[in-house]
Amino acid sequence: MSNTSSIASATSRNELREVVRSQLKLLLEEKNYEGAKTLLVPVPSVDIAEAIEGLPETLQLLGFRLLKKNIAVQVYEYLPPRIQQSLIKKFQDEEVINIVNEMSPDKRAKLFDELPPKLIRKLLNHLSAEERQATDLLLGYGADTAGRIMTPKYIALKEHLTAIEAQKKIRTLAQQSEVSYYLYVTDEDKHLIGLISLKDLIICDPKTPLREIMTQEVISADTETDQEEVAKLIQRYDLLALPIVDKEKTLLGVVTVDDIIDVLELEATEDIYKMGGLDSPKDDYFEISLFNVIKQRSPWVLLLLVTNSATVMILSHYEVILDQVVALAFFTPLLIGAGGNVGAQSSTVVIRGLSTEGLKDKKPLEVVIREFITGGLLGMMLGVLVIVGIILFLGQQKVSLTVGISLLCITIIAATTGATLPYLFMKLGFDPALMSSPLITTVVDILGIFIYLNTARFVLGI
Amino acid sequence: MSNTSSIASATSRNELREVVRSQLKLLLEEKNYEGAKTLLVPVPSVDIAEAIEGLPETLQLLGFRLLKKNIAVQVYEYLPPRIQQSLIKKFQDEEVINIVNEMSPDKRAKLFDELPPKLIRKLLNHLSAEERQATDLLLGYGADTAGRIMTPKYIALKEHLTAIEAQKKIRTLAQQSEVSYYLYVTDEDKHLIGLISLKDLIICDPKTPLREIMTQEVISADTETDQEEVAKLIQRYDLLALPIVDKEKTLLGVVTVDDIIDVLELEATEDIYKMGGLDSPKDDYFEISLFNVIKQRSPWVLLLLVTNSATVMILSHYEVILDQVVALAFFTPLLIGAGGNVGAQSSTVVIRGLSTEGLKDKKPLEVVIREFITGGLLGMMLGVLVIVGIILFLGQQKVSLTVGISLLCITIIAATTGATLPYLFMKLGFDPALMSSPLITTVVDILGIFIYLNTARFVLGI
Repeated sequence: MSNTSSIASATSRNELREVVRSQLKLLLEEKNYEGAKTLLVPVPSVDIAEAIEGLPETLQLLGFRLLKKNIAVQVYEYLPPRIQQSLIKKFQDEEVINIVNEMSPDKRAKLFDELPPKLIRKLLNHLSAEERQATDLLLGYGADTAGRIMTPKYIALKEHLTAIEAQKKIRTLAQQSEVSYYLYVTDEDKHLIGLISLKDLIICDPKTPLREIMTQEVISADTETDQEEVAKLIQRYDLLALPIVDKEKTLLGVVTVDDIIDVLELEATEDIYKMGGLDSPKDDYFEISLFNVIKQRSPWVLLLLVTNSATVMILSHYEVILDQVVALAFFTPLLIGAGGNVGAQSSTVVIRGLSTEGLKDKKPLEVVIREFITGGLLGMMLGVLVIVGIILFLGQQKVSLTVGISLLCITIIAATTGATLPYLFMKLGFDPALMSSPLITTVVDILGIFIYLNTARFVLGI
Repeated sequence: MSNTSSIASATSRNELREVVRSQLKLLLEEKNYEGAKTLLVPVPSVDIAEAIEGLPETLQLLGFRLLKKNIAVQVYEYLPPRIQQSLIKKFQDEEVINIVNEMSPDKRAKLFDELPPKLIRKLLNHLSAEERQATDLLLGYGADTAGRIMTPKYIALKEHLTAIEAQKKIRTLAQQSEVSYYLYVTDEDKHLIGLISLKDLIICDPKTPLREIMTQEVISADTETDQEEVAKLIQRYDLLALPIVDKEKTLLGVVTVDDIIDVLELEATEDIYKMGGLDSPKDDYFEISLFNVIKQRSPWVLLLLVTNSATVMILSHYEVILDQVVALAFFTPLLIGAGGNVGAQSSTVVIRGLSTEGLKDKKPLEVVIREFITGGLLGMMLGVLVIVGIILFLGQQKVSLTVGISLLCITIIAATTGATLPYLFMKLGFDPALMSSPLITTVVDILGIFIYLNTARFVLGI
């Protein structure tokens, strides 16, 4: 079993991470640098980055300097922007240049996004011509596009090569390129004409030319394609990488699946934030300053407050009714609360359906009608419950009828608007996820109180 | 340029899908089967599945039968469960057996989850011994575990093989195994002892034994590990596949990154549904019956209604105050609305932070205190606005003070409970995402009204 001791499974993996974090701190504080080096040898780069992130700021540079050059670059790439920037200011010139020159172009472009222009110019001057060119290329594309997240260091082969020749070629190119699972075949003008997997290269007869084994039906994306669209293509077609081309189908780079998983997580977070009534975060919410938290959260809260003041207008307009039957005021929170809940459910399913393509086959009208019926059924259930409850506990028949009828109308309207508004937002060119639970709740508050007081006027004959 | 005509980029890809869908229907209706066959030749399996899904039910079987055997299996795997089941009942015996026997074991296990036991027994009887064993193995593990989603058809090699021998071995095994980017090295007892990528196999000296090039630090998961945990490992360590082992580190199967992307999307949908106050869906929400929609949505709506009836109790208990100053009733929706919005924001950031590990370095108390301060700052902003507004428009100074003070207290409590409850839920063993916007809104409704009426009593001296 000694052989398998280094095979760590999921459960022990989290404990291992904890041990590395606490041990590294201890060893550095004891100035036991050899011990710290030995500790880190078998640790994956992402876990080393986490351990360095967890160190007190005074020890971070020290911890980082224990790493071998090739590991140091990987660890640096995994560090959060905040620590990348703090380190880059403390590094000696030579250290900076070594690391930045060795970074993969997409990670480097991401770092440059966060640095002051003066520092970027200095760093660019120190890059090798090739790396500088790669970085310039990426920085030329808009944020969140395929061009920005691709790596230009793919391997491209010519179609007349045989499988065995291709293998030899890969061996010579492996040092300066990223070998992904796919190899791309290009013509003399660098146009993408085919794709071949490493597997195909190994299992075919070694003398077969690539032309005969390559797939010509290659799925690709433009440099300007949004990264979310790239993610969806990779997900849909179960790809490990996607080639990125320009309008003439010239191959420019490759986006790999590991980058895409992070994109998908970020997009889900953005949706969730919007649905919770927050602007989507530029940086980690828990890392930004309180000032920025307030800046991020107050627009929605303020907008909703101002909108909700319509309820004050309506209620004060119907003051006479409330004055005569004060019991009516007891039920406003209950009514608008129930409506808000039903509305939040409806908008949630529609927003998620639109963002995952779960709704691609459904007509909007069909969906809205189904929500209308659902709202009606839920409302009838709740209405009966409320009528029975009010008669039993408060003995007010007319009030109970008012509340029951209002509840039915409110849930129907809540479910219908909850389903309609995300479509409307999309139609208007906004993100449907902006139709958040807080927003639908506010809409239902206003409509609900209006319905309630008019039902009261009718039923109570005031 | 004729060479590159089949390279479809992202933008034209969606149009292509549309064309295939509409053309297939037309050709089948015209009984032009040869035309339909030709149409489908260059189309990826997932798009064919989508096109068949979009056909009227009477044409689905017909469309499916146009496919070549190896494509048919892939297309079948991509079809949604509903159509898989409908087709399996219409197939002739021989067709069923061919397809089910050729399916990958993990997809087959998923299908069997949905079929009646009688049909499963019949199908199992017709499987080849090897496929039957693979299926039995997977079905033996719980739903949502690594064991259930892994493929047992990995390639394992012995460490004494040289790179060139390994390549030969892969060539002979490629027919009955899935060749992923990683190859696994096992000892005589099938214990996992190392990993080697296809890239390493190609770029090393062909005569090197695997022992010398394999990585011994292999990250793996247990068969019982939750699929979400598997997804997080693959995401964290940028892997293309993860080996699955038993307690003795015996290699049993492999989970690949393409399966994991779907798991991550499903988990995000589950979180979003819970945060919107819905049970997480077993099947696509838009495919289930209205009865099941109500069954899924009513528990939360009912629970929240019953909880919210506490607001009725409180308001009726303070009837005297409302009777004396009816204007107080105008502001309840505004107050609890603003509180609910702030609370929904706080619970959203904390829930998402807990589910993406964005909060892994933060102490709960630290997070709650920050939300407390945020709530206070937002409350002061809103409070001042409301006090000025009420004095300007309604001229009621004491009421304005009551509303302003209450608003400050309510936003503080909303932000603090919004941040605390997800942690509490997690501590109690529930999913933090259950702390939905509707739930926090309801909690804020009750606390808010209590605070409001007591502030009123104090400020107005009733």
